[in-house]
Amino acid sequence: MHFRMPQKVTFKYCDPAGMVFYPRYFEMINDAIEAMFDAVLGWPFEEIHKDRSVPTAAIEVRFDAPSRHGDLLHLDLTLMRIGRTSMALQSQAACAAETRFRAEQTLVCVGPDGRPEPWPDPVRDKVTKLLEGRP
Amino acid sequence: MHFRMPQKVTFKYCDPAGMVFYPRYFEMINDAIEAMFDAVLGWPFEEIHKDRSVPTAAIEVRFDAPSRHGDLLHLDLTLMRIGRTSMALQSQAACAAETRFRAEQTLVCVGPDGRPEPWPDPVRDKVTKLLEGRP
Amino acid sequence: MHFRMPQKVTFKYCDPAGMVFYPRYFEMINDAIEAMFDAVLGWPFEEIHKDRSVPTAAIEVRFDAPSRHGDLLHLDLTLMRIGRTSMALQSQAACAAETRFRAEQTLVCVGPDGRPEPWPDPVRDKVTKLLEGRP
Amino acid sequence: MHFRMPQKVTFKYCDPAGMVFYPRYFEMINDAIEAMFDAVLGWPFEEIHKDRSVPTAAIEVRFDAPSRHGDLLHLDLTLMRIGRTSMALQSQAACAAETRFRAEQTLVCVGPDGRPEPWPDPVRDKVTKLLEGRP
Repeated sequence: MHFRMPQKVTFKYCDPAGMVFYPRYFEMINDAIEAMFDAVLGWPFEEIHKDRSVPTAAIEVRFDAPSRHGDLLHLDLTLMRIGRTSMALQSQAACAAETRFRAEQTLVCVGPDGRPEPWPDPVRDKVTKLLEGRP
Repeated sequence: MHFRMPQKVTFKYCDPAGMVFYPRYFEMINDAIEAMFDAVLGWPFEEIHKDRSVPTAAIEVRFDAPSRHGDLLHLDLTLMRIGRTSMALQSQAACAAETRFRAEQTLVCVGPDGRPEPWPDPVRDKVTKLLEGRP
Repeated sequence: MHFRMPQKVTFKYCDPAGMVFYPRYFEMINDAIEAMFDAVLGWPFEEIHKDRSVPTAAIEVRFDAPSRHGDLLHLDLTLMRIGRTSMALQSQAACAAETRFRAEQTLVCVGPDGRPEPWPDPVRDKVTKLLEGRP
Repeated sequence: MHFRMPQKVTFKYCDPAGMVFYPRYFEMINDAIEAMFDAVLGWPFEEIHKDRSVPTAAIEVRFDAPSRHGDLLHLDLTLMRIGRTSMALQSQAACAAETRFRAEQTLVCVGPDGRPEPWPDPVRDKVTKLLEGRP
């Protein structure tokens, strides 16, 4: 696991069933990835989005148990693979020991012309080190 | 295809890259499923949620091309399978002939006690007819 | 009243109290204004936002009664005043005869440099005609 | 000022103009009020919403300057008045010394029957102390 973001389930995330409205989970995932790019990869989203973007090309989620208003979640992100222009990562949310969801996601590095372009070298190097367990 | 929902990409759906923020796509998918439950299955979400719910247990999405502010999308829903307490469906969004995303999703019928329970007979019958291509 | 937008209260708009989460009302208001700019003023948001914007400078809302999942609302917009770079409008949402909220809002026309700039003449002319009750 | 919540402007809050989409500000305000009810008044929203609610009856906001992706905001809440069933508060967001918005808002304590009911004594006592500047 390469990054952990705590996340309390506040009122805004919940639906009339009193549980997290699942589209809101993707906002949490996006916040966690954004925080990881800043803290771990040193490439904050506000820098990236001056002329590039890192859209999600695919995502797969399994919701194991519902989350309720007030729950103290943590989202754990794990980098899985890095390609020339893509990156795969897992996210997992839990409340104490109970898993709430597990997601696998592919991001793409997109350049100013809207096409995939290679990850910047410092990002690729950092991810490669993390995948190899080097400091 | 069993239900189509038109959806203009309004300002609120878009991110700083000028494209639909992907968590917002799940709101569109939820709106489409809600409209289909009302129009096709005759079981509106506002009835369901008096004491039950139909949460998403799993979802898998491939984003084929970005959608931009002002795009006129249509979301097409196709019922795929119905189990005792679950239901599988596909959704696909396109702008004219260009596919924007394709999703596969499993819903579960959850009772007042928070546990899966069998779909009501009229819902099961209607879905079965649709899957068999009967009127 | 210069524009009416029907709006069903779908699941996504509602909170654990089963009522519209009030920040979501502002999304409805934004959708209604966006639709009015397109249909009535002939200046769609997707055109405006190529190099300009029409941010809200101030808004005041009174929530008269809660809205619930499934309610069929209509939002009525009334243009009130147009200045050199600003515009005042009222919005009102109701379900049948019951008012749900009333809002007064000031929009500003902002140019490519981020500063207020005069409304385009066709927009000013159209608003002026509407305010004077001319066809 | 009775409560401060730091809030980074993450990607999800921003619109195609690269600024905070103003309906999202109300989510921030709601988060801040929710955190204040927990930390300052000792009545967490997840407790309240078991059978009550604290809806907003009216809100008035002036947006002084736009906020951009990456901005580090702080939201300051100030309790202004407490009535039998209502409460007035101000919120103000700033980035460093620049004010971004100022809001005045009235909340109502609503009971299980959907009608206004008196604030619980410990909440009233705590607010009264804060308004009188007592510890």
